[in-house]
Amino acid sequence: MTITGEMLIGASAVRGTEETFYGINPATGEQLEPAFHSGNANDVERACVLAEAAFDAYRATTPEQRAQFLESIADAIEAIGDELIQRAHAETALPLARLQGERGRTTGQLRLFARVLRDGRWQDATLDSALPERTPPRPDLRMQKIAVGPVAVFGASNFPLAFSVAGGDTASALAAGCPVVAKAHPAHPGTSELVGRAIQKAVADSGLPEGVFSLIMGVGNAIGTALVAHPAIQAVGFTGSRTGGLALMNVANTRPQPIPVYAEMSSINPVYLLPEALAARGEQIARDLIDSLVLGVGQFCTNPGLLLAIEGPALEAFRATALAALTGKPAATMLTPGIHQAFERGVTQLSDIAGLSRAACGLDATGPNQARPVFFETSAEQFIADHRMHVEVFGPSTVLVTCKDAETLLAVTRILEGQLTATVQADAGDHALAARLLPALERKVGRVLFNGFPTGVEVSFAMVHGGPFPATSDTRTTSVGASAIDRFLRPVCYQNVPADLLPQAVRDSNPLNLWRLKDGELGRA
Amino acid sequence: MTITGEMLIGASAVRGTEETFYGINPATGEQLEPAFHSGNANDVERACVLAEAAFDAYRATTPEQRAQFLESIADAIEAIGDELIQRAHAETALPLARLQGERGRTTGQLRLFARVLRDGRWQDATLDSALPERTPPRPDLRMQKIAVGPVAVFGASNFPLAFSVAGGDTASALAAGCPVVAKAHPAHPGTSELVGRAIQKAVADSGLPEGVFSLIMGVGNAIGTALVAHPAIQAVGFTGSRTGGLALMNVANTRPQPIPVYAEMSSINPVYLLPEALAARGEQIARDLIDSLVLGVGQFCTNPGLLLAIEGPALEAFRATALAALTGKPAATMLTPGIHQAFERGVTQLSDIAGLSRAACGLDATGPNQARPVFFETSAEQFIADHRMHVEVFGPSTVLVTCKDAETLLAVTRILEGQLTATVQADAGDHALAARLLPALERKVGRVLFNGFPTGVEVSFAMVHGGPFPATSDTRTTSVGASAIDRFLRPVCYQNVPADLLPQAVRDSNPLNLWRLKDGELGRA
Repeated sequence: MTITGEMLIGASAVRGTEETFYGINPATGEQLEPAFHSGNANDVERACVLAEAAFDAYRATTPEQRAQFLESIADAIEAIGDELIQRAHAETALPLARLQGERGRTTGQLRLFARVLRDGRWQDATLDSALPERTPPRPDLRMQKIAVGPVAVFGASNFPLAFSVAGGDTASALAAGCPVVAKAHPAHPGTSELVGRAIQKAVADSGLPEGVFSLIMGVGNAIGTALVAHPAIQAVGFTGSRTGGLALMNVANTRPQPIPVYAEMSSINPVYLLPEALAARGEQIARDLIDSLVLGVGQFCTNPGLLLAIEGPALEAFRATALAALTGKPAATMLTPGIHQAFERGVTQLSDIAGLSRAACGLDATGPNQARPVFFETSAEQFIADHRMHVEVFGPSTVLVTCKDAETLLAVTRILEGQLTATVQADAGDHALAARLLPALERKVGRVLFNGFPTGVEVSFAMVHGGPFPATSDTRTTSVGASAIDRFLRPVCYQNVPADLLPQAVRDSNPLNLWRLKDGELGRA
Repeated sequence: MTITGEMLIGASAVRGTEETFYGINPATGEQLEPAFHSGNANDVERACVLAEAAFDAYRATTPEQRAQFLESIADAIEAIGDELIQRAHAETALPLARLQGERGRTTGQLRLFARVLRDGRWQDATLDSALPERTPPRPDLRMQKIAVGPVAVFGASNFPLAFSVAGGDTASALAAGCPVVAKAHPAHPGTSELVGRAIQKAVADSGLPEGVFSLIMGVGNAIGTALVAHPAIQAVGFTGSRTGGLALMNVANTRPQPIPVYAEMSSINPVYLLPEALAARGEQIARDLIDSLVLGVGQFCTNPGLLLAIEGPALEAFRATALAALTGKPAATMLTPGIHQAFERGVTQLSDIAGLSRAACGLDATGPNQARPVFFETSAEQFIADHRMHVEVFGPSTVLVTCKDAETLLAVTRILEGQLTATVQADAGDHALAARLLPALERKVGRVLFNGFPTGVEVSFAMVHGGPFPATSDTRTTSVGASAIDRFLRPVCYQNVPADLLPQAVRDSNPLNLWRLKDGELGRA
């Protein structure tokens, strides 16, 4: 497939007229051909008008039709073949194996939502029978969920496939029946174009209206702001920085009609190292934890940026092993020069804080845009007192906070901001403390995990990739897993609607064979 | 029960120290004893600190315990007896029979949420089995929904019982496991105190921590602003004006940690009078519609403030009957002097619009704060061109918009703002047009009803009392019916959490006998 540097507006390919930019190989600094060009508000307008025009026809497709459409997107992505992996590798410096895995995750997500569509519980079909004899009579009431409208999706820097043009936001929005206008992340425009063309082809092959999908390009904030401000857009999916997420929330909240923003933003993912676990297997935990810290050059939303433990000999042993392991870790190339600069700035800011000491660093950089892993440490008292230590430094940086006792560990927990994850390393003898910790963690995070590491987010039914602010903008939701579709749905009630006008999902005969709640009882009859 | 004029902060009764105010009998202008006093930010702080302190213990209660608590609130409200009805009648001028019905609805809501709690589907329990043989291995993942935290509830002016201190917002928040800090509407402080004391008693009788419920009082915006801004508060329920809702949304969005506001605000509830229905039963529809318009002096969120029809003889006959029916309707006392003034102001503003004519009025006022019903009319072209006609006038006012043809009717529909309801009067011969109308209406409203009138909102499983902005601030939700509990919940995922630490809802043995999704299959095993 040829990468042309164009945007995809409906069925058309359109060359932007604003600033020229290129994909950059962060490992070499090399500009990657072809040139791309930022779009402008007119391009946003065209994409959004097409999305709005497509919406009613698209949401009227059957769940089965949309399931097949999602599967055809997955097929079309696979059909690109190795070119996609090579281009993503050139644009991001992410290893080939990682990108192959990420492609599998991306197509797996699309196929999961096909399954979700066929299952149909997402429609939440609910029926209350009329009670004509009651005083006052009760009308016949039926409810289903429908699509909210066109959705804006912002590609993430750190997952060029799974959280980008055809990532979880797009898959779940398309599943819900919402057209998508995607904004490519400018760090991987070629990858974005390839995937966008796969979706564009699937739209055409499926006989859907062209406005079901558009892909716009741009550097800077103007085009994203115009997209979120456009009256056709009814919801926003975003994975990125806290600054970026807050800016989009502000645009969305100050529209004449405010809309929801699902922004996954900022998390330091505390890891609790409980005493018995440290005593029994502290050295193994230390090595695995450092591996988790440097995985993907620390460029995961779930990177373990905060370690919490109670002082004592087991912690000392853990610490010695961890520092030694970290010291041997190579510097590695980050996704973009900007992300690398932000990492260096964040590390410098942490280094300047009195009371926070740099205990170890990895090996020196050997090429451009390489991050050296870094390990800081401090006391609970200093951590509680200085909020600057709570801020995410995106990359392979972590802070070990030593607590005097279990009460201090709990006190630190209570003052944490919202997080995507919390990890607990605990053996049987730690369960009494873990039982006290768990209710505190539930209030702070979207996912609690035991005896593992937070990097690695399964795409499944029970996954929650979410959490209280600032981990996300909307703690009621997840951006990964089957429940992500709920973000793009709203309920509608049908009262005494004649049988021939009722939507399929709530017809008496249950033609879609849905699980439905009828007069308060769940069934499939 | 004695009304003391105090606020209820946890288990205490506290006299406010700020502005003195009274309940006012709007039918007479008489001040009702005793005096009430506005609270201040210190009172908000005490109530919120208690709510926060109660949260973990309250959310740890079993669903059965909370169900019994809700039932004990219902019992305690009934135990107040006729005093509650008499006081509400004096404070609102709403008829006794209506208030008796509203009390039944209020206690019925509390008991519905007890049923919802026992049913347990609200927990959304989901289990994905570990796949240790897979590459990479899949961990054991379990998900449940938990309470978001303390909730602020604002009492509404127009439902002193069902949308106030123990109304649907409070019932659904308490069901979810959220402590509630309620702000009484200053138009019915005595009613609010009586109901608040019933909840306070139920908290004590149920052995719950006192912070599960507080009731604060105040005139003006300061205390409500302080409540929404308080860091302990995690969500807000509000039913009232668009101005009020937008102000609370702004406070919530600009907190350091933004929180969701569920504001039910503004709706003119279009009624579509399709040609066959008008021809067959236009005069009956006219009389019933005018009855719906003046019911409760038009002080319903679902009042029919917009009528849409296609020109022709059947519409003329409808119009003649409607105008005659309206002309005979008495003026009636509104809830408060302020609401009456706003109604008069709104009617004057509509009257001043060129192209909108006042076709009929009801009988003259005979006492203070009485609203004369009023019927305006205009053409579709003028309605489309002048947004001032789209604004809700809270009270017995409606606008008939005459359309040239079906296309014009659809064109008007497409430019409407979001609404709580749309009503379609349609006979069999109208179904072809209704089938075209229905998709347009789905996008504009939370509830579509046929051959009825929008006033009257059933409390059931399938009800949606919601809709796109500005009908509500959050189109994904309903403030009435079983699904209202979803507003106060968020999902948490448990990964490889040891069996003895798992929450009841997701334990292998399913001790709560919940419907659960296990590996994608719904079941109760």
